[in-house]
Amino acid sequence: MVFRVTVNSAWRATRTLWLLVLVSLSVCICVCRASSTQEDSAMENIVTEKKAEESHRQDSADLLIFIMLLTLTILTIWLFKHRRFRFLHETGLAMIYGVLVGVVLRYGIHVPRDISNATLSCPVNASPATLLINVSGKFYEYTLKGEINANEVDDVQDNEMLRKVTFDPEVFFNILLPPIIFHAGYSLKRRHFFRNMGSILAYAFLGTVISCFVIGLLMYGCVMLMKQVGQLDGDFFFTDCLFFGAIVSATDPVTVLAIFNELQVDVDLYALLFGESVLNDAVAVVLSSSIVAYQPQGDNSHTFEVMAMLKSFGMFLGVFSGSFALGVATGCLVKFLDCCPYVTKFTKLRDFPLLETALFFLMSWSTFLLAEACGFTGVVAVLFCGITQAHYTFNNLSPDSQDRTKQLFELLNFLAENFIFSYMGLTLFTFQNHVFNPMFIVGAFGALPCCPLLNLVPSQVAVFLGRAANIYPLSFLLNLGRRNKIRSNFQHMMMFAGLRGAMTFALSIRDTATYARQMMFSTTLLVVFFTVWICGGGTTQMLSCQRIRVGVDSDQDNSMSITDGSERRSTKHESAWLFRIWYNFDHNYLKPILTHSGPPLTATLPPCCGPLARILTSPQAYENECQLKDDDSDLILTDGDINLTYGDITVSTDASGAHTSSGPAFAGGATSDDLDRELTYGDHELVMRGTRLVLPMDDSEPPFTDPHHRLRM
Amino acid sequence: MVFRVTVNSAWRATRTLWLLVLVSLSVCICVCRASSTQEDSAMENIVTEKKAEESHRQDSADLLIFIMLLTLTILTIWLFKHRRFRFLHETGLAMIYGVLVGVVLRYGIHVPRDISNATLSCPVNASPATLLINVSGKFYEYTLKGEINANEVDDVQDNEMLRKVTFDPEVFFNILLPPIIFHAGYSLKRRHFFRNMGSILAYAFLGTVISCFVIGLLMYGCVMLMKQVGQLDGDFFFTDCLFFGAIVSATDPVTVLAIFNELQVDVDLYALLFGESVLNDAVAVVLSSSIVAYQPQGDNSHTFEVMAMLKSFGMFLGVFSGSFALGVATGCLVKFLDCCPYVTKFTKLRDFPLLETALFFLMSWSTFLLAEACGFTGVVAVLFCGITQAHYTFNNLSPDSQDRTKQLFELLNFLAENFIFSYMGLTLFTFQNHVFNPMFIVGAFGALPCCPLLNLVPSQVAVFLGRAANIYPLSFLLNLGRRNKIRSNFQHMMMFAGLRGAMTFALSIRDTATYARQMMFSTTLLVVFFTVWICGGGTTQMLSCQRIRVGVDSDQDNSMSITDGSERRSTKHESAWLFRIWYNFDHNYLKPILTHSGPPLTATLPPCCGPLARILTSPQAYENECQLKDDDSDLILTDGDINLTYGDITVSTDASGAHTSSGPAFAGGATSDDLDRELTYGDHELVMRGTRLVLPMDDSEPPFTDPHHRLRM
Repeated sequence: MVFRVTVNSAWRATRTLWLLVLVSLSVCICVCRASSTQEDSAMENIVTEKKAEESHRQDSADLLIFIMLLTLTILTIWLFKHRRFRFLHETGLAMIYGVLVGVVLRYGIHVPRDISNATLSCPVNASPATLLINVSGKFYEYTLKGEINANEVDDVQDNEMLRKVTFDPEVFFNILLPPIIFHAGYSLKRRHFFRNMGSILAYAFLGTVISCFVIGLLMYGCVMLMKQVGQLDGDFFFTDCLFFGAIVSATDPVTVLAIFNELQVDVDLYALLFGESVLNDAVAVVLSSSIVAYQPQGDNSHTFEVMAMLKSFGMFLGVFSGSFALGVATGCLVKFLDCCPYVTKFTKLRDFPLLETALFFLMSWSTFLLAEACGFTGVVAVLFCGITQAHYTFNNLSPDSQDRTKQLFELLNFLAENFIFSYMGLTLFTFQNHVFNPMFIVGAFGALPCCPLLNLVPSQVAVFLGRAANIYPLSFLLNLGRRNKIRSNFQHMMMFAGLRGAMTFALSIRDTATYARQMMFSTTLLVVFFTVWICGGGTTQMLSCQRIRVGVDSDQDNSMSITDGSERRSTKHESAWLFRIWYNFDHNYLKPILTHSGPPLTATLPPCCGPLARILTSPQAYENECQLKDDDSDLILTDGDINLTYGDITVSTDASGAHTSSGPAFAGGATSDDLDRELTYGDHELVMRGTRLVLPMDDSEPPFTDPHHRLRM
Repeated sequence: MVFRVTVNSAWRATRTLWLLVLVSLSVCICVCRASSTQEDSAMENIVTEKKAEESHRQDSADLLIFIMLLTLTILTIWLFKHRRFRFLHETGLAMIYGVLVGVVLRYGIHVPRDISNATLSCPVNASPATLLINVSGKFYEYTLKGEINANEVDDVQDNEMLRKVTFDPEVFFNILLPPIIFHAGYSLKRRHFFRNMGSILAYAFLGTVISCFVIGLLMYGCVMLMKQVGQLDGDFFFTDCLFFGAIVSATDPVTVLAIFNELQVDVDLYALLFGESVLNDAVAVVLSSSIVAYQPQGDNSHTFEVMAMLKSFGMFLGVFSGSFALGVATGCLVKFLDCCPYVTKFTKLRDFPLLETALFFLMSWSTFLLAEACGFTGVVAVLFCGITQAHYTFNNLSPDSQDRTKQLFELLNFLAENFIFSYMGLTLFTFQNHVFNPMFIVGAFGALPCCPLLNLVPSQVAVFLGRAANIYPLSFLLNLGRRNKIRSNFQHMMMFAGLRGAMTFALSIRDTATYARQMMFSTTLLVVFFTVWICGGGTTQMLSCQRIRVGVDSDQDNSMSITDGSERRSTKHESAWLFRIWYNFDHNYLKPILTHSGPPLTATLPPCCGPLARILTSPQAYENECQLKDDDSDLILTDGDINLTYGDITVSTDASGAHTSSGPAFAGGATSDDLDRELTYGDHELVMRGTRLVLPMDDSEPPFTDPHHRLRM
């Protein structure tokens, strides 16, 4: 009886909470409305002050709407965790709440028209960005907000209100995207990512380009058809179609990955999907900007021209590699900052975790901004900055800062992601210039059948499939070279998991000035909604339907996992050649330069480079011997069986101060056993981080629980 | 020799770093300039896209300038920590760098005038907020940016550039202030704060009001004088003077407190200064908005009218208490959210630290926004929300979330504070409408002599001193009632430590529309610079000059500290009556309802309230007995001698399930011993937090080091 009472009271409590949040949400919506209807008094100064106050209050109310939306989402997620609902992810939820509030804002409230709104018919030829208006001797400055449809001129006031809730698209790019992308890079599952590197790169680069062109061509066909039927009200060129293809090629399977993580789906599938989605965001961004930059020199700017195309292609390569280099460089710079005190008697930065964390945070963000300011792509730069920092810098940070940075980016990622998704929901109703073209939308969905259900609809079978053209042919080609084949059920799953999310949205909202772009934006929104709700919700069904193994312990996976084609004997044989080349280079040269682990350079570089090697390693070798061991013993503490692996690596610098290699294992390069063990270790650590990406279920412990580590966290 | 080499290389490394940061800063300034001089091509669509890209690039570069400034500040702080420079705090540094970059932006670069900038002379009577312009059938919307001086019309383009670097003042209020204020509330040193509560409240409320009126009157005299001399170009009313008095009454001794913490200055002085500065920010905000709201109903709106004044006074009380209630309510709501699962079989929110942290963060911020949207004062609400959460919610959080929230707000506070101060430096040169009036400035400094040096300057001796009128008379009155007198050297120190900072700046930049406000803003900036550099820098000198004890271990302070007037025998006698009343109420009623510590309500409420008490406590008593002990044992672990104290409090709910009081100590109220011990415990925990507010020196350990606790952090 006591039980029933308490459970009932729990329900009552939850309901009360929701009511509270909902009430405050509606209060703030009301306040947000009320404040804009206040009447102004006569005095000029007081008018200014009142206006300032009113606008401030309105701003607060608008922000509050979003905060309340996020709070509501969190409370609901908590309920879902309890009930173990898996058919709706938090991002899907955030969108639903966003849509609801959007409907209320759009249709629930009408603001009476303000008389102070004047329409001028001035003899200007253009629409300059800044306008000075001379009102009886006083100059007032006005800035351009945008074009307004002639039929919307009447309800500008209403729109003004809605526009207040609409953020500047730059906010997404400069503030919300960087933490999401950085976090993705920072939490890449290293072992399986690097092991499947070849396939991931193929999917991300070739696949995205194929998908972009296939979708672009299909949409062009669709647009042509629409022109015939007379359904098109504005210009829509082939470059626009390609641009659309590029932006919807950025997949964001956050929902699917969360479920994968929860159910511990096969790690290779996870790595393929996650790696592909992280990298194809980067490729899609650069691709879309290259397409925008395509400008033939002739009169007709929408014809095909080889030179312009080559220029675009060159730009793609230049921007991508430039951003890549910038990201890696900044990543290493942070590491350098962290390491230089080691070399010296200088106070260590690690002693000030707050400074260290702040610096880490600022450097990551400034990578993004620097890349954008230089004309490179911030997303790519920050992604590789994240990967570099996870790979090289992370282990140099103090344990306190390791936790702080992990938790900080985890929180920022969580908040930014949910914010973007709830904003997406809101914008479905509050955005002013939606162009919903049924044919274009059907065409787009036909071209993007991330959901096999759609393929079955006969009318759309004819349309060739953007993502299908990415996954299936590439998988076939890759399987020719892979020992560990990508099975057909994995291929279906990857096909299904082609969700579109934050990146697609941010790219499409960035520029909504022209008719074509507005149509793209509206269509993109629907694509995101559909894929997140339908595909995201159907993940568990799809997993069981495709008979994909769940509950895989990624640690035991090496020995247990059996593939369709060939049975694996030993882990070392399955490593791809690309990976092995990279690994040797990394282990022998990069790690010793950039971290405190790995053999000294004097041992790995050929004898002719002796002096160079000594310059690069000597200060560390002089001063860091004890330091090194402390660091490693700290790491070893976290897991017993790693001890051995790290043990035989760290012994390499012997205590007498002579910096020679301690054994043959380090002279020529790491053995495959070392390679595998080290990766296992690296992965161990990242699985911990990976699981924390998703919120742990109350019963599912992270795969590696370790009291020391937990205590510290 | 090896030593010298490495130290040299350290210097070289540091120099290289600085060069790197400086180079990238100048690169981004150049990019920021270059991007605005790009020429546009003819095509309309491409123009739109180019413009969007250009503006995006500019935005990135502008943000990058600030990020680089922060990075530079952090690197320099690190150097200062090493060299133990105490004469310049990080905020002072941030200002210096800001000023330097401001000078470069202002005088270093000139943007050629853009021809697309058109001046219209239209027949409009007013300057509406939104303007629709009809350009050959197409409607364009323009928004008002502000009035431009007739002599500045020519270099609007230059100004446009500078204005891009100038943030919307709302950014300070909605985004940067909340974390700073919340962090201040969250890290109040509880024991000494509550023990000196009476004095702190007197300084904060009475003192701020006195200081506001004294400064207001003095400035009015100064303004009158200026009118006589003919130095005043615009209106300046008595309400403006009072407003100025209110905004400069908000003290922000962040520099001084950092040094206090480092040197372990007397805890009572610390508590007085910190408590006063935290609360008087809140009072100053409400006071300034009440002054703005003062509107006599007659024709002349600047005469004295009793009704209007009473209305303002009522508004002050209403807004303050409303904000207070809202803050406390939200603080308790978070706690309720955290606790309700305990009562039930529901999954606990504590199991999801990410959700818990996110919720905590969002609720704190939404407190601020909700208060602002309702017309209350967000600063006050968020301050009391922080205090409530530190007092009641903090111990209910999971250990993981405790660390996360602490670290998160610490980082946010650090970044926001340094950002505001570097922005202040920047704005000295980039703000467009500075009105530097020498007489007003001299008058202001005379009225604000936080630095005794100034008092000695004969020309200003005549001017009565705003802060002096706050500190000295109040201290005299308070000393009549206090057992533990506020000594005269403490008074001088408090006088000296009246620095002005972030809050004063945010209040003054909020509205710079009128001539009076512009003059105030410029003067305020100078006041902040002067106090932070001179008073902040002279803190150590002042401490030694006033012979204030440093290196006080706040734990031993109870028994050791000897005051000038009366020697203390026992700690229990020094507790103020206000504090003791509050403490009993808190311990007997609030703690049992809001946390898991303290005696059950059935024991503390009078017998007639038995049923009510049972309703409020019973579920916890049923379910939480073991939980309670777990919590407490967790707490006890952190300090050996607290064990006993908490031991005899937690025993109060006996294991058999009967919820009666276990001894007479709990029936009537806690004994003074309990009170003192519990506060000692509470303080212990907060000293840890307090020390972490400031960056630890490499040699100065926090006063209470405890391996278990440190490990967890």
